[in-house]
Amino acid sequence: MELYLIRHGIAVERDACISDEDRPLTDKGRQKTDKVAKRLRDMGLRFDMILASPLVRSRQTAAILKAANLSSHMQEFPPLAPEGNIQDWISWLETQRRQDASKVQCLALVGHQPNLANWAETLVWGQIKEKLELKKAGVIGLHLPDSGMPIAKSELFLLTSPKWLI
Amino acid sequence: MELYLIRHGIAVERDACISDEDRPLTDKGRQKTDKVAKRLRDMGLRFDMILASPLVRSRQTAAILKAANLSSHMQEFPPLAPEGNIQDWISWLETQRRQDASKVQCLALVGHQPNLANWAETLVWGQIKEKLELKKAGVIGLHLPDSGMPIAKSELFLLTSPKWLI
Repeated sequence: MELYLIRHGIAVERDACISDEDRPLTDKGRQKTDKVAKRLRDMGLRFDMILASPLVRSRQTAAILKAANLSSHMQEFPPLAPEGNIQDWISWLETQRRQDASKVQCLALVGHQPNLANWAETLVWGQIKEKLELKKAGVIGLHLPDSGMPIAKSELFLLTSPKWLI
Repeated sequence: MELYLIRHGIAVERDACISDEDRPLTDKGRQKTDKVAKRLRDMGLRFDMILASPLVRSRQTAAILKAANLSSHMQEFPPLAPEGNIQDWISWLETQRRQDASKVQCLALVGHQPNLANWAETLVWGQIKEKLELKKAGVIGLHLPDSGMPIAKSELFLLTSPKWLI
C-alpha cells in the first residue's frame, strides 16, 4: 500500500480578523499547489481516496488535488486536524480494509505540520523525533504493509518540498 | 550544513567475469545519472566537494556529477566502500571543520546501499532500522548542525528516486 502525506499550501497569515480554521490559501499557495498536483498526476499517481483535515486551507488543497484528477473521492477527516491522533486513522484504515482492501491501496492524507511528519515517523520508526522537514505543499511517500498494524513497519520512499517537483 | 547522499547509477550485473569492485555503469545508468546531475545543477546546487566510494560504479557516478559542474573537487573516499564506517567520515568532517569550516558547507557523498541509507538514519535518528528506500541514482538530503557531532542531530529534507527528478 502507498500512502502520501501532503501538507496544505501557503495560506494567509494568522491575524485577529480570521480564525485559524478559516485561513484560506493565498493566490501563490493555490498556484503552487496546483503545479504540485499536476506533477503528481503526470507521474501517474491516482489516489483511491483523499482524506483532508477539516480546516479550510487543507480542504482547499485537497480540492486542488481532486480537480487535477488525482482522485474522484475526497472526504473530510477530523483526525487530520492539528489536534488529531494517528490511532483514529489506523482504526479507520482497519475498518476500510475489512470492507474492501482493494479500495485503500493508494491513499492521500492532506493536513498540517507537525502532525503529518509525526505520523510518518510513527509509521516508519515507531517514534516521533521531529526530524523530517515537510514544507507547505510538500509530499511524503510511504510504503505500508498490505495488512496488519503499519506502525514501525512502513518504509519511506519520498520526502520532497514543492521546489523539487515543479 | 547540507549533505547529499547519492547512490551510484545502474551498473552491469554481477557475474563471474568481473569483480564487484570493477562493475561499470551501463549506458542507461550513465544517461539517467547524467539527467539527475543536470537537474541538481539546474536547481542551483553546488557541492564544496564530492567524496566517492572507490568502486568503479561510484567513481563514474561522481565523475558525471563533477562533469555537470556540480563541483570542481572530487575525491575517492574509502569509508564509502560497502564495508565502510560512518565514524571514519565523522572524523574526516571534524578535521575539515578544524581547517576551514566554510569549505564543507555543502557536500555530496557517492556510494552504495545499504550504507548510504544507514548513514542517513544514523545521522537523523541515531540508529539504523533500514526503513529508507534509496534507488540507484537516488538522492537523500540532510541538514546537519554546523558544528558538533551530527549523529542523531540532523534533519531529513529530501529523499527521492531519479524518476521524481528527471
